[in-house]
Amino acid sequence: MRIVGKELPRVEILEKVTGQSVFGADASVAGRILHGKLLLSPHAHARIKGIRTERAEKLTGVKAIVTAADLPDVQYGRFVRDEQYFAHDKVRYVGDRVAAVAAVDAETAAQALRLIEVDYEELPSVTSAPEAMEPGAPLIHEGFAEYFAADGVEGRAGNICSHRQIVCGDVDRAFAEADQIFEDTFHAPMVHQTYLEPHCVLARFDATGKATVWVPTQAQFPLRAAIAQILHMPMTKVRVIPTEIGGGFGGKILATVEPAAIALARKAGTPVRMVMTRGEDFQTGNPRHPFHMRYKTGVKRDGTLVAREITLVLGTGYSASSGVMISQGAAVRAPGPYRIPNLKIDSYCVYTNTATCAAYRGPAGPQLTFASESQIDMIARELGMDPLELRLKNAMEENDQTPTGAGLQDVYAKETLRKTAEVMGPPSAPGAHPRGRGMAMAHWLVGGMASSAGVKLNEDGTVAILTGVVDLSGASTSLAQITAEVLGVSLDDVHVRTADTDFAPHSTISAGSQALKSMGSAVLLAAREVERQIREVASDRLEADAGDLELDDNRVFVKGTPERGVTLREVGHLALEHRRGPIVSTQSVAQLQSHPAMTTHAAEVAVDPDTGHVEILRYVAVQDVGTAINPLSVRGQIEGGVMQGLGQALSEACTFDQGKMTNPNLLDYKIFSSLDAPEVEVHLIEHPCASGPLGAKGVGEPPIIPPPAVIANAVHDAIGVRIRELPITAEKICIALKQKSNP
Amino acid sequence: MRIVGKELPRVEILEKVTGQSVFGADASVAGRILHGKLLLSPHAHARIKGIRTERAEKLTGVKAIVTAADLPDVQYGRFVRDEQYFAHDKVRYVGDRVAAVAAVDAETAAQALRLIEVDYEELPSVTSAPEAMEPGAPLIHEGFAEYFAADGVEGRAGNICSHRQIVCGDVDRAFAEADQIFEDTFHAPMVHQTYLEPHCVLARFDATGKATVWVPTQAQFPLRAAIAQILHMPMTKVRVIPTEIGGGFGGKILATVEPAAIALARKAGTPVRMVMTRGEDFQTGNPRHPFHMRYKTGVKRDGTLVAREITLVLGTGYSASSGVMISQGAAVRAPGPYRIPNLKIDSYCVYTNTATCAAYRGPAGPQLTFASESQIDMIARELGMDPLELRLKNAMEENDQTPTGAGLQDVYAKETLRKTAEVMGPPSAPGAHPRGRGMAMAHWLVGGMASSAGVKLNEDGTVAILTGVVDLSGASTSLAQITAEVLGVSLDDVHVRTADTDFAPHSTISAGSQALKSMGSAVLLAAREVERQIREVASDRLEADAGDLELDDNRVFVKGTPERGVTLREVGHLALEHRRGPIVSTQSVAQLQSHPAMTTHAAEVAVDPDTGHVEILRYVAVQDVGTAINPLSVRGQIEGGVMQGLGQALSEACTFDQGKMTNPNLLDYKIFSSLDAPEVEVHLIEHPCASGPLGAKGVGEPPIIPPPAVIANAVHDAIGVRIRELPITAEKICIALKQKSNP
Repeated sequence: MRIVGKELPRVEILEKVTGQSVFGADASVAGRILHGKLLLSPHAHARIKGIRTERAEKLTGVKAIVTAADLPDVQYGRFVRDEQYFAHDKVRYVGDRVAAVAAVDAETAAQALRLIEVDYEELPSVTSAPEAMEPGAPLIHEGFAEYFAADGVEGRAGNICSHRQIVCGDVDRAFAEADQIFEDTFHAPMVHQTYLEPHCVLARFDATGKATVWVPTQAQFPLRAAIAQILHMPMTKVRVIPTEIGGGFGGKILATVEPAAIALARKAGTPVRMVMTRGEDFQTGNPRHPFHMRYKTGVKRDGTLVAREITLVLGTGYSASSGVMISQGAAVRAPGPYRIPNLKIDSYCVYTNTATCAAYRGPAGPQLTFASESQIDMIARELGMDPLELRLKNAMEENDQTPTGAGLQDVYAKETLRKTAEVMGPPSAPGAHPRGRGMAMAHWLVGGMASSAGVKLNEDGTVAILTGVVDLSGASTSLAQITAEVLGVSLDDVHVRTADTDFAPHSTISAGSQALKSMGSAVLLAAREVERQIREVASDRLEADAGDLELDDNRVFVKGTPERGVTLREVGHLALEHRRGPIVSTQSVAQLQSHPAMTTHAAEVAVDPDTGHVEILRYVAVQDVGTAINPLSVRGQIEGGVMQGLGQALSEACTFDQGKMTNPNLLDYKIFSSLDAPEVEVHLIEHPCASGPLGAKGVGEPPIIPPPAVIANAVHDAIGVRIRELPITAEKICIALKQKSNP
Repeated sequence: MRIVGKELPRVEILEKVTGQSVFGADASVAGRILHGKLLLSPHAHARIKGIRTERAEKLTGVKAIVTAADLPDVQYGRFVRDEQYFAHDKVRYVGDRVAAVAAVDAETAAQALRLIEVDYEELPSVTSAPEAMEPGAPLIHEGFAEYFAADGVEGRAGNICSHRQIVCGDVDRAFAEADQIFEDTFHAPMVHQTYLEPHCVLARFDATGKATVWVPTQAQFPLRAAIAQILHMPMTKVRVIPTEIGGGFGGKILATVEPAAIALARKAGTPVRMVMTRGEDFQTGNPRHPFHMRYKTGVKRDGTLVAREITLVLGTGYSASSGVMISQGAAVRAPGPYRIPNLKIDSYCVYTNTATCAAYRGPAGPQLTFASESQIDMIARELGMDPLELRLKNAMEENDQTPTGAGLQDVYAKETLRKTAEVMGPPSAPGAHPRGRGMAMAHWLVGGMASSAGVKLNEDGTVAILTGVVDLSGASTSLAQITAEVLGVSLDDVHVRTADTDFAPHSTISAGSQALKSMGSAVLLAAREVERQIREVASDRLEADAGDLELDDNRVFVKGTPERGVTLREVGHLALEHRRGPIVSTQSVAQLQSHPAMTTHAAEVAVDPDTGHVEILRYVAVQDVGTAINPLSVRGQIEGGVMQGLGQALSEACTFDQGKMTNPNLLDYKIFSSLDAPEVEVHLIEHPCASGPLGAKGVGEPPIIPPPAVIANAVHDAIGVRIRELPITAEKICIALKQKSNP
């Protein structure tokens, strides 16, 4: 291949590095724009006895105030219809939306918020999912039993939103026959995506009743659907224009500020801009689910895993949102990438009085892998085996099945394990502080939602791609590479930019590692159809069979006689006079089959026993990526994923006091910064994947998954203490070391 | 049909009437925008000996100055490459572009223009085409013989840019055998489109080297091609975003201010807005060609037309532009919609020292019909025949041929004549002033350029159309009607809005009566393919044969058992999970066959012999339109065309003194206003046309064509004087009456 597989800089990079890209808050329309702000609940759980907006309305400069009364009385939610955009009768978390104000400037809007009087009757609240499951816990949705729920949402009771159980084989018998049984509990806290750009929107509502929003979103089509549902509008009256996006990581899929901004713009008759502060974003975003996990594993003396009984409790926050799906998917992936014949998995999705948790890169992945791979490490040590050998002995192979019986193809678990061990090599010399190594393996099922895309040949022989997928991590460049490859043109001759919901064909979301897999497949189909049309036009002109033609170097020519050809510029012009008309195609792909992407990470750390500081000396990430369309972009994805994973491993957690987040800022909420970052040694395993475009697998999610387990295992290897609760802070290490020396 | 054929208001009308539509000068981008202005030549013909911009550059607030030196040295033009965007060695008309300035405000830019010093050496100029053809006339393009010219541009010599001759039969013998010969000369002056919105643009040039222009254009794809050619950029680096447009009428097809604005934005590193004043627009626009016409016609005593010898001299202005095409097309249509066996037509396209003339609604139509139909009236009077009878005797019929031998189908000339006579009825009672009636018939060959369009089904069952055709006169509504008809949905459920060149598939121009004919055909194909996909998905769900299904009322159901069905909303959702993926299609149409659209107009006027004022008492327009998709829109088109035609008949002309326009403002250049407007009695002849979507013919051009001839004939009928030079002003009538009474 000429272009696919080349390390290429991103096609849009110059605009970004020169500051010309238009991000959410940069979006503008002609004329006056009002500033909108949300009034958020200060209580984790309270009844609303009344809202009085009169004083705020009288404030000079206030142009509109909206509350639940201004919106249709709609309950929404993909799996359970448990959400109302503005709180009606109750607030259910600190940050719940109560009202919104549009004013001539942000200061006036903020002042108006203080003049809105809300009578609350405080109610007992619960922010821990295990506590919310207990009898007598405060009930978050009293009317829950009446809510509409989609098929497959089972086991609803009290604050339990869903319960999925998967049973394979006979765990009781297997445990009875096991040589040794390990039982451990683990906890991973709520963590936030901390994208650079907080949620923001510019909304316009025009005379035809059409709402247009400019918004940094990962998912313009689902966002359009959500807005249409919340505001009860047809999709033809909602236009979502995605701006450039300052990070998403799953946190920019759901509707957040958009319905409020539209409602304000409609009421005020003037466009409204809303930009969340970092604190508002922390409190009202859609962070990663906290997980409580119990793993019971039975093994034979030789290291064969015979049974696992797993209980997962996921805190979904005040609404189900994607929590049901993530909880159910977690049940399938919980046993890890191993052959284990006997399984019993219970996965609970539980309401709590916090913001709704939803997708964060590799949903449930880091939490489950932290638990599962920590325990695998503990088992190996207890059995006196090399953890690598234990993993190799039990790792999934081609045609193995998931716990639900789905067959798996393109399984390269062992190859990632062996490559990781090879790269790590022999232990390094000792240093000032105790050193240790850790390893963890994970799998991710990369499927693909349905997508469609267009490709057209311009009259000058250049090519444009029409897609609705937002470019978060280099997807545009890879889509351009695929198209350039098929049509035999240079990358410079391909234009790709995201169209909005009015103009783009229906596109997948930029999440779930599928921007390239799903959209790339649609683009590939469309490019091949455009290639067919080019051959048709050229075939007539050259009086040669279409099948005898070759496309290369921006020309079409007869194979073997390159001088008998036409340029694509000529073809582009000819097509307009030819019996077929302009050369263009839009093609769709259905949902794509899931293939497991395997990844193994390993690290060497040094732990300062006095301070508890963990220094990462080496970090190796080996990932099975199918075909790497743009290896530069793939490596970047993996490096970025590792960094986020290391933040979750070592420092990140949303902390709460009575439902109120105590660290909603980037000083107290500690993400992994470039100063903390180790060099990541990335190695790609490339075997073309049957269901991806030109063999590509999705690559975005897997790299964020192993780091917490890797670090936990490396820390244990270094200093002999096992941390079962993320993050692995210096404080926890110091306490554990103290407990170890004074048991 | 449920929706096609209904009189419906325009889908976008609410935005327009509430002032929310974004027109060219309303376009905005975030951040500072500079103001650009063009330095125009004050001379009709002069050599440029030097340009000094130093003083202007030093003016505070000036950010960029560009001249020919800043642009690639490119000569361009569709038929003859005789244009340079900025004048190099010579200026060739008053208004020729010499330089452009971008400054912080319009006043500073204007002041800077005055500081640019240009050394001109004035040259003799010529603004009349017949004079420009004379030996010894000043040569406008010295290097003309070396310029690239497209195939078919023949007879180049001196200032003659092209000469086309068409000969059929033997005119000399036919004249020898004729009973009577009529020989007359006619003149139609240059007239301007006088759209409400002068030319304007907002241009941005970004770090990736991409130029984006927001511009009210009728022809975004040709404009992109022109910009790419002038600035030597690939089409992927030029994005044309069409704004709403305040009228075009053919005057917004060519590049005008856009390349200057891009060059300024590139040099200044800041977006630039340019808005022409009315005076600048008058002097630098692309008005209708002035025509000098000599018609020699031989007839038999019974009224049979046996021969016509026609000489047409078209003044194209300083460049060929579309003048060659219009001159060549005029040759084909010059004999009028009659069977005339012997023809000799010479059509000359001639350079003059004026702005380039180009397309104006029905190019060459009003001029030719004024000459041809005035003479038909004169012949009838001379032979003592009713002009209606003379026309009926000679009118074209089905399968007749054009002078170049193209066969004509769907010919309804006689039906329009008879219908017009029927509607006019018997003469009205005499009034205070002499009354008279006139009639004229015209034909227009409506073809269609290649186009492509997309249609998609949203997940909620609503429908979006993806088109790049600009909506000048209700095309969007008709495209929505066609789609709603095919898919069985209501008009409210169809969204149609013009996408820009990056996102729209290649689209025809909104001119030449083909926005609906060509784009409608592409939309119809795409809608039918979407219908097929809907049937496919519904067929699986309903377990019924796709062919047994019916689409109506936003549902798909089994014919005869409407309760066995699914809603389109369900189909839209299902498709995303179905093996076919999202429902979307993009389809292309090639160039479409030309069908003659026939129209006959008649008027009754009263002429005040003292003042020369012509009062229009009645005006009847009968037009063959194929299927009227939206009769309200069709009638609106016809009424508007008649008004513009009446302006050309009675008051409009660009007047010059030494190449300088003497009436470049709407006080001195008199368009027909709503105070002058008669009620127009519109009657549609509907016979579905084979080459149009659902039988539609283009309707935009024909109604502007007959009015000058109709008024000339009616004035003659009233007061017995024949005006052979447009416009038929009160002054000309008074002079003619005086000459008649004192010959």
